[in-house]
Amino acid sequence: MNANKIKTAITPTRADNYSEWYQQVIKAADLAEISSVRGCMIIKPWGYAIWENMQRILDEAFKETGHKNFYSPLLIPLSFMQKEADHIEGFAKECAVVTHHRLAKNAEGVLVPASPLEEPYIIRPTSETIIGDAFSRWIQSYRDLPLLMNQWANIVRWEMRTRLFLRTTEFLWQEGHTAHASSEEAMQESLKMLDIYAQFAENHMAMPVIQGEKTASERFPGAVNTYCIEAMMQDNKALQAGTSHFLGQHFSRGFNIKYLSKEGKEEFVWTTSWGSSTRLIGGLIMTHSDDNGLVLPPKLAPAHVVILPIIHKEEDRELIMNYCNKLREAVGKIVYHHRRLVVEMDTRELPGGEKAWQWVKKGIPIRLEIGNKECTNQTVFMGRRDKEYKDRQSISQQEFLAIVVKELDEMQTNLLHRARERQKQHSMIINNQNDFYEYFKNDGGFAYAHWNGDPAIEAKIKAELSVTIRCMPFAHKANPGKCIFTGEPSAQPVVFAEAY
Amino acid sequence: MNANKIKTAITPTRADNYSEWYQQVIKAADLAEISSVRGCMIIKPWGYAIWENMQRILDEAFKETGHKNFYSPLLIPLSFMQKEADHIEGFAKECAVVTHHRLAKNAEGVLVPASPLEEPYIIRPTSETIIGDAFSRWIQSYRDLPLLMNQWANIVRWEMRTRLFLRTTEFLWQEGHTAHASSEEAMQESLKMLDIYAQFAENHMAMPVIQGEKTASERFPGAVNTYCIEAMMQDNKALQAGTSHFLGQHFSRGFNIKYLSKEGKEEFVWTTSWGSSTRLIGGLIMTHSDDNGLVLPPKLAPAHVVILPIIHKEEDRELIMNYCNKLREAVGKIVYHHRRLVVEMDTRELPGGEKAWQWVKKGIPIRLEIGNKECTNQTVFMGRRDKEYKDRQSISQQEFLAIVVKELDEMQTNLLHRARERQKQHSMIINNQNDFYEYFKNDGGFAYAHWNGDPAIEAKIKAELSVTIRCMPFAHKANPGKCIFTGEPSAQPVVFAEAY
Repeated sequence: MNANKIKTAITPTRADNYSEWYQQVIKAADLAEISSVRGCMIIKPWGYAIWENMQRILDEAFKETGHKNFYSPLLIPLSFMQKEADHIEGFAKECAVVTHHRLAKNAEGVLVPASPLEEPYIIRPTSETIIGDAFSRWIQSYRDLPLLMNQWANIVRWEMRTRLFLRTTEFLWQEGHTAHASSEEAMQESLKMLDIYAQFAENHMAMPVIQGEKTASERFPGAVNTYCIEAMMQDNKALQAGTSHFLGQHFSRGFNIKYLSKEGKEEFVWTTSWGSSTRLIGGLIMTHSDDNGLVLPPKLAPAHVVILPIIHKEEDRELIMNYCNKLREAVGKIVYHHRRLVVEMDTRELPGGEKAWQWVKKGIPIRLEIGNKECTNQTVFMGRRDKEYKDRQSISQQEFLAIVVKELDEMQTNLLHRARERQKQHSMIINNQNDFYEYFKNDGGFAYAHWNGDPAIEAKIKAELSVTIRCMPFAHKANPGKCIFTGEPSAQPVVFAEAY
Repeated sequence: MNANKIKTAITPTRADNYSEWYQQVIKAADLAEISSVRGCMIIKPWGYAIWENMQRILDEAFKETGHKNFYSPLLIPLSFMQKEADHIEGFAKECAVVTHHRLAKNAEGVLVPASPLEEPYIIRPTSETIIGDAFSRWIQSYRDLPLLMNQWANIVRWEMRTRLFLRTTEFLWQEGHTAHASSEEAMQESLKMLDIYAQFAENHMAMPVIQGEKTASERFPGAVNTYCIEAMMQDNKALQAGTSHFLGQHFSRGFNIKYLSKEGKEEFVWTTSWGSSTRLIGGLIMTHSDDNGLVLPPKLAPAHVVILPIIHKEEDRELIMNYCNKLREAVGKIVYHHRRLVVEMDTRELPGGEKAWQWVKKGIPIRLEIGNKECTNQTVFMGRRDKEYKDRQSISQQEFLAIVVKELDEMQTNLLHRARERQKQHSMIINNQNDFYEYFKNDGGFAYAHWNGDPAIEAKIKAELSVTIRCMPFAHKANPGKCIFTGEPSAQPVVFAEAY
């Protein structure tokens, strides 16, 4: 396939088949693939490098707010999972169960699981229980509080229908777990961490989000309140991109996490948990990518600039390679948000256009094509990923070095702006049931509508339209009205959408 | 227990009970603990921060040598494990087996594993097989080679006797996996990565190591050659601290990893794998710590300096805290090996001596006690962890800021020097069988002795003395002789030792 000869580098386009387009973007950018293990992915280097950037930035934000990293076991005793009733109820269907250790040959010489465990272990679908058990040992007095912990770990949830990054049997994430002396402080913590997710989404992923609270039916199993950030993808569906849970005393009672207060009274602590995962990469892809492949916000791109030497005549090789090597060195010294710019140089012997298109599909922010002309004129031929492919410009090398950071910052801003505009365009205040159904039978998006709080109505809408309440947005808290389905009073409008 | 009133902060001492001393050092420094899951540890913040430092430094070294990070699945189909005969033979006893997904209540209302899997999954004890399967898809032509990959992951091996960091059912590690067009190149890679481990051990951990090759009986299951670094602990036992395997074509044949050569011939690739794990933390502890607790080489310490405000009179509080805050800021600006010094300040209301001893036990390189006198004289009262507790000095704040990096570098060098001296002292060339038995019936250490290559002799010595051949050291390759057990020819002396 010669990418130059077709209209778009990715087939099908978003308009033709959004879901298949998503898979093809991942393939073309070489981000990940489905492995031979049911529903589990292999994250390939370009995809993993995005995750490393996300980890670095979030990790700094967690540490700046006083959290410390630790590591808790992959395996959880079945009995632990049962200590919080809603928790096990919510996760029972998704558990992978370790029942044996050791393999041995059976009578037919076939290798089979040999030694049954006394008690089965669950591979962690989340770690509130095993960490609750640890907290009960670590916390004795008010002096041990607040306890602010985080871990980077892998998680297994047995999903029936999987999709790369968005829903996989195994995924990578971070999970924060904290314990506090008061309900207020724990609540504050869960909101603070939600805000860190929201800031990260907007400032680094260039992905605008709505902050809000989940309804009871969408709550984390075992939580008192679940807060979330929700982003809009280009097919107008919502993606839950991070959640933060106020767990009240559910887990402290289940695991007997008590502290001696200043007043000498024994009290249960108040806990929170909050998580974000490799799902964010799915959100990143679906927020910015286009029909030519991946588009990466510069702040999260594994590399910022690719240099593409275009050598038509063998006699030009030395000239061009010298020029490229010096350019690479100069660009690599430039500081961009407290780190150095990362530069790739693609010296493969492929036609120039083909090379350039491969990097377009990988979403690198800036491409520099360097041929004989550029060397002679001391220029670069620059393409920026958020512009049209053909919208390239020839500028002096000196000027390029002076403006590259500005170009990247502009691109970052531009991506956020575009995504914000799209979200605005596909959000609507809806005041009656007919319009609501009409809205979701057409293109849909985020529907702000009043709802009386009845889970039966949520369930009915979900069954009829595959639409759920994504959240009760904080921004509309002080805005009561009438439920569009029943006419009953409503405390605030909620956001309905189809969701991933 | 008041640490001031006993001779040593750790009970028992190394001399009294080395193994128990090790556990107590970990406890006193709050590095890790055994969890409620059989043989699995929780790595606590101070221990995990050491691991983060190790990861950062090794990761940089891997990336500098062209390796890219990726992530492969936790679960491995049982059938994959069987594709390399020695591999499954070696790991069968240590496998944790996932046989079911989903939990459901049985007739008695008890939650039990509900849906059996068609094929059981093994939790990765190492990933050669699942990565071999991926390589067979990724590699087509010589242009795809070499393929240089690494992943940071958790591993489960069902160990019967576990010990924090040294041998746990779950541990954290990195595993490198590479594929090459030629045997020579793959061999070179495995030796190069071993050298990176050795450099890391010596330059960062201050832990001198011997590089060498394992004998056949100690080889990684499925490898053609296994190379290792071996360090000496303070009880004269050896710790294998990293291994690198030349896998030949064992896994490329098992998983059909073929490439089309430049000459247009289909060939099997040559692969390597290499790993290092949280076991390194165990090695770090046992190399440097003393009877007062953990001693951390500055290059891997989570924090370099602790400031201890000593406030005897309430009226001094403001003066002392102001002084400490300014000091903290000044120290935190100092660059130490391309990063900033990390400073802790301990403002807990504990007696000064008790606070200081807690930091001694945590192994922080430099302690600064700051009382009224220090503020008045603009001095600091400094203790360095590799010196006696009482060997503290009062120096001007200005001087301290000027020499702190030199102090840390001196400490780093001093720790390596001490460890090297100890290794020398407890290494011996042994020329006859009697001396050999005598040596290991006494204190033992590293015995350099000639051996005829017969595994039966290895097995006999292991049974009689619990001593194994740690490696055939590279440094003694060109040094043939006569086997001390049989008088038969020996290609080179090998290193015998008791091992962890």
